[in-house]
Amino acid sequence: MAVTFSLDNEVFRVYLAYAGLVAFKMLILSPLISTTRVSKRIYENPEDSELNSPEPNKYVRKDPWIERMRRCHLNDLENIVPFLIVGLLYVLTGPSVDAATWHFRIFVVSRCIHTIAYLLPLPQPTRFLMMYVGWFTTASMAVQCLKIGQF
Amino acid sequence: MAVTFSLDNEVFRVYLAYAGLVAFKMLILSPLISTTRVSKRIYENPEDSELNSPEPNKYVRKDPWIERMRRCHLNDLENIVPFLIVGLLYVLTGPSVDAATWHFRIFVVSRCIHTIAYLLPLPQPTRFLMMYVGWFTTASMAVQCLKIGQF
Amino acid sequence: MAVTFSLDNEVFRVYLAYAGLVAFKMLILSPLISTTRVSKRIYENPEDSELNSPEPNKYVRKDPWIERMRRCHLNDLENIVPFLIVGLLYVLTGPSVDAATWHFRIFVVSRCIHTIAYLLPLPQPTRFLMMYVGWFTTASMAVQCLKIGQF
Repeated sequence: MAVTFSLDNEVFRVYLAYAGLVAFKMLILSPLISTTRVSKRIYENPEDSELNSPEPNKYVRKDPWIERMRRCHLNDLENIVPFLIVGLLYVLTGPSVDAATWHFRIFVVSRCIHTIAYLLPLPQPTRFLMMYVGWFTTASMAVQCLKIGQF
Repeated sequence: MAVTFSLDNEVFRVYLAYAGLVAFKMLILSPLISTTRVSKRIYENPEDSELNSPEPNKYVRKDPWIERMRRCHLNDLENIVPFLIVGLLYVLTGPSVDAATWHFRIFVVSRCIHTIAYLLPLPQPTRFLMMYVGWFTTASMAVQCLKIGQF
Repeated sequence: MAVTFSLDNEVFRVYLAYAGLVAFKMLILSPLISTTRVSKRIYENPEDSELNSPEPNKYVRKDPWIERMRRCHLNDLENIVPFLIVGLLYVLTGPSVDAATWHFRIFVVSRCIHTIAYLLPLPQPTRFLMMYVGWFTTASMAVQCLKIGQF
């Protein structure tokens, strides 16, 4: 019987755990950025400024720390979103539980270190290496989909 | 028998409707931005400018209204894409039809109001609140995946 | 029996092939951008600059070619990610193998030409048309989801 998505499929249960974890890690950057904007009074839109401010554009400005958090968030979108989709498809290519668990585990750990390295920041090449570790994990799963798919 | 993805699963049919709707809402911003660029002659690339223009860089410039639409689109990517993926996984965690429908409904309504609030714009904190309503909906579903997943 | 995701489902096998291919195409832009940054010494963060550089901000600057690659990558995120998610859901709406294959094939070809047109660049309206061909393919699948979904 062919592999399918359900809680009876152990590989899917493992995917569910790591996907939920790394999605949560990505989601956390949104409130982090927006609360920092409010506390530092650095906004992108005139209407975000102080309520009834006589100078609505006064606090529309850029800040190196906020721009850094935004680059970190965009890098997550570019890497974590493809992982979530490709990883889900990879579950159905029928990998062993071990192979799948290590793919998911390495990806999630590399992205957590990537975020820490971006935000502290840690000296390079930490962030650079972590980006590539995650990249090769997703690429390896995409190749499995390509090999089993039907053109 | 374990829950799976199919039209026999009522929670999946509800997900399909709301996911299709909110994906469509996000997609509409692309042609909205590109037709506004053409009508206002505001481009990002020299080759997008008037055909055979003697001054290819003349219309490569920024515009507050287009930048606002782009921020709205990027915010959709940051929020709607995680919802679509996490929401799909959440279907398999076996929620009741009511719990799932309200998660999907609240998210989709909050993102529609968010887009209107960003583009008109409506006074804050409308957009701010709508962003957080959507955020907590997705986070709540991610927590369900984490709880049922297997590390 | 209702349609489901598995390698027994021919439409899913076709999706797997095209999804893997277009995900791979999108992924390739990340190392392309980061190796170009290193070779041209154009960085976004002070710590990315030369190791132990006495002037950490010296190479934090912008470059038209790198900005072009970044816009191409962002356009992929805005278009390929919705395709991957909506295309997966569309598999379960029960399309014929032919209808599904042509949706996937047209999308993937249009995005490959889009990337080439963006990076060379080719004269407009090549890139513009390719963006819309891909857009309508995804929108057509989203409409199928909406029609079959249950509100």
